[in-house]
Amino acid sequence: MIRIGIYGYGNLGRGVEYAIRQNDDMELVAVFTRRNPETVEIKTDGVKVCHVDDAKNMTDEIDVMVLCGGSATDLPEQTPEMAKLYNVVDSFDTHAKIPQHFANVDMSAKSNNKVAIISVGWDPGLFSLSRMYAGVVLPEGKDYTFWGKGVSQGHSDAIRRIDGVKNAKQYTIPIDAALEAVRSGVMPELSTRQKHLRECFVVAEDGADLKRIEEEIKTMPNYFAEYDTIVHFISEEELMREHSGIPHGGFVIRTGKTGEKKENNHIIEYSLKLDSNPEFTASVIVAYARAAYRLSKMGDSGCKTVLDIAPGMLSQKSADELRRELV
Amino acid sequence: MIRIGIYGYGNLGRGVEYAIRQNDDMELVAVFTRRNPETVEIKTDGVKVCHVDDAKNMTDEIDVMVLCGGSATDLPEQTPEMAKLYNVVDSFDTHAKIPQHFANVDMSAKSNNKVAIISVGWDPGLFSLSRMYAGVVLPEGKDYTFWGKGVSQGHSDAIRRIDGVKNAKQYTIPIDAALEAVRSGVMPELSTRQKHLRECFVVAEDGADLKRIEEEIKTMPNYFAEYDTIVHFISEEELMREHSGIPHGGFVIRTGKTGEKKENNHIIEYSLKLDSNPEFTASVIVAYARAAYRLSKMGDSGCKTVLDIAPGMLSQKSADELRRELV
Repeated sequence: MIRIGIYGYGNLGRGVEYAIRQNDDMELVAVFTRRNPETVEIKTDGVKVCHVDDAKNMTDEIDVMVLCGGSATDLPEQTPEMAKLYNVVDSFDTHAKIPQHFANVDMSAKSNNKVAIISVGWDPGLFSLSRMYAGVVLPEGKDYTFWGKGVSQGHSDAIRRIDGVKNAKQYTIPIDAALEAVRSGVMPELSTRQKHLRECFVVAEDGADLKRIEEEIKTMPNYFAEYDTIVHFISEEELMREHSGIPHGGFVIRTGKTGEKKENNHIIEYSLKLDSNPEFTASVIVAYARAAYRLSKMGDSGCKTVLDIAPGMLSQKSADELRRELV
Repeated sequence: MIRIGIYGYGNLGRGVEYAIRQNDDMELVAVFTRRNPETVEIKTDGVKVCHVDDAKNMTDEIDVMVLCGGSATDLPEQTPEMAKLYNVVDSFDTHAKIPQHFANVDMSAKSNNKVAIISVGWDPGLFSLSRMYAGVVLPEGKDYTFWGKGVSQGHSDAIRRIDGVKNAKQYTIPIDAALEAVRSGVMPELSTRQKHLRECFVVAEDGADLKRIEEEIKTMPNYFAEYDTIVHFISEEELMREHSGIPHGGFVIRTGKTGEKKENNHIIEYSLKLDSNPEFTASVIVAYARAAYRLSKMGDSGCKTVLDIAPGMLSQKSADELRRELV
């Protein structure tokens, strides 16, 4: 059994807890929280909830620590710290800062003989793999990543910070015409506005100026100004009833050419349609936790990303079985 | 520069020749043929065409030998033989015989300190990878592979062997209703007939009994009897004009569930739409030839499949660059 610890118990942590149940070579040993452990109720009987300060004392009981904090401030500190003590997996997703995060984690993991796998999930993660494979197979081509339809937490939060807004949910929606243009193989140049639409469901405070709120959303730099944005004002009840899920998904499409005169077109398309973004991300993380464990057993150490891990390392099946059943 | 040899010069061999041009860290050194080399014209100036008997004499000049023969009789002999002398890549695609082929090639490669990568292409190959990743991420789920729309060489050949048939082309077509049922997440049980349709374009000899030919096609066991099959009789001119390409493609779809009560559905879909089956297969092979070369340089040896190769090994870019650009 691979003994797993969960560090941080929000939506992602709970997703990891559920995912462990679906992998019979794994068991959950402990959940670590910054809150008072007595106030945190988890979903698995007989598993202890500990304060994060106690994480350093369980190195004999945990094989892989799964870090479930946020990328903005939690993981840049937590992953290098925990990689001194445990094999770790995180879902660090600030693309531009991955090289720096990698370097920090690598130093901790290498000098303590641990395996760390960072930026695991679907983007980065499975989408990175799709871009990687498609790129080497069709070197003369172009790839496109589309996100959605799905809820963007960051954009929903940005709306909630506007004066007069009680609650909000924002959906990122890929634009069909852009997807079709990409699939046609013409390798179009697409602007930000041409690729995605933003649809917002907003609950306003009583008596708030709706026109002003809508204007503030639509002109918000970085978040909305570069997009066509649709704003709906709805009641709190409707928001809870119709928009309480956390779906997401997206597409990675690469088109490219081969042949004597580059006369042949090829389209590689990978897509996800996810009812629960955190649970799916957690499912990817758990598979890579297995790889971290196995690599560590083989004497490997240091920081890795999904690009460094042979696919077969993710399975509990032997290489023999995988060849028979999957190749 | 990675120095490549091509062993067998049909559609696939020529595809490898074109693919090498798209990878600027590779050069074609020689093409080996069973025919009289003087009768074989290749597409690259200054590259020699040799008889297969001379393949044993070029071990100092070639880093990776790409085997482009057929899976029925060529590769089971050629790959183990060549793996004694060279790092090799093949596209062995008889799924049921992969374990035996692997064992044979592994013995040759290991005892001669060479790296061999077998069953490279899109199915087996990229589709195997899709099944692998999707399976570990959604352990409680079901996956489906659909092929087409594309030309099946084996089925086209089977029709051509019927008395009174001059020429023929067979398309394997996935049935939309089946694809939609799979994408809905209900995990349907689908019969052979429900998944694919077979459409045949047949050129008959003058005066041949068309009714009898159609009947022979539709009732042919293993090839057509288990499918709904459509037969069109057309002229040789129309066949040449409309059906001379070798397109193919397909879908790997896995749906699965997560959550406390398995209430959340997820759909992972990978699809290919290829103008040229052999050229695309060749493009995959060439990327894995790079991995074979790099693994060999690192001191590795033995037989591998795509499941054993870390994705980053396929690229000429450094791990640093890949993290910055792709993760």
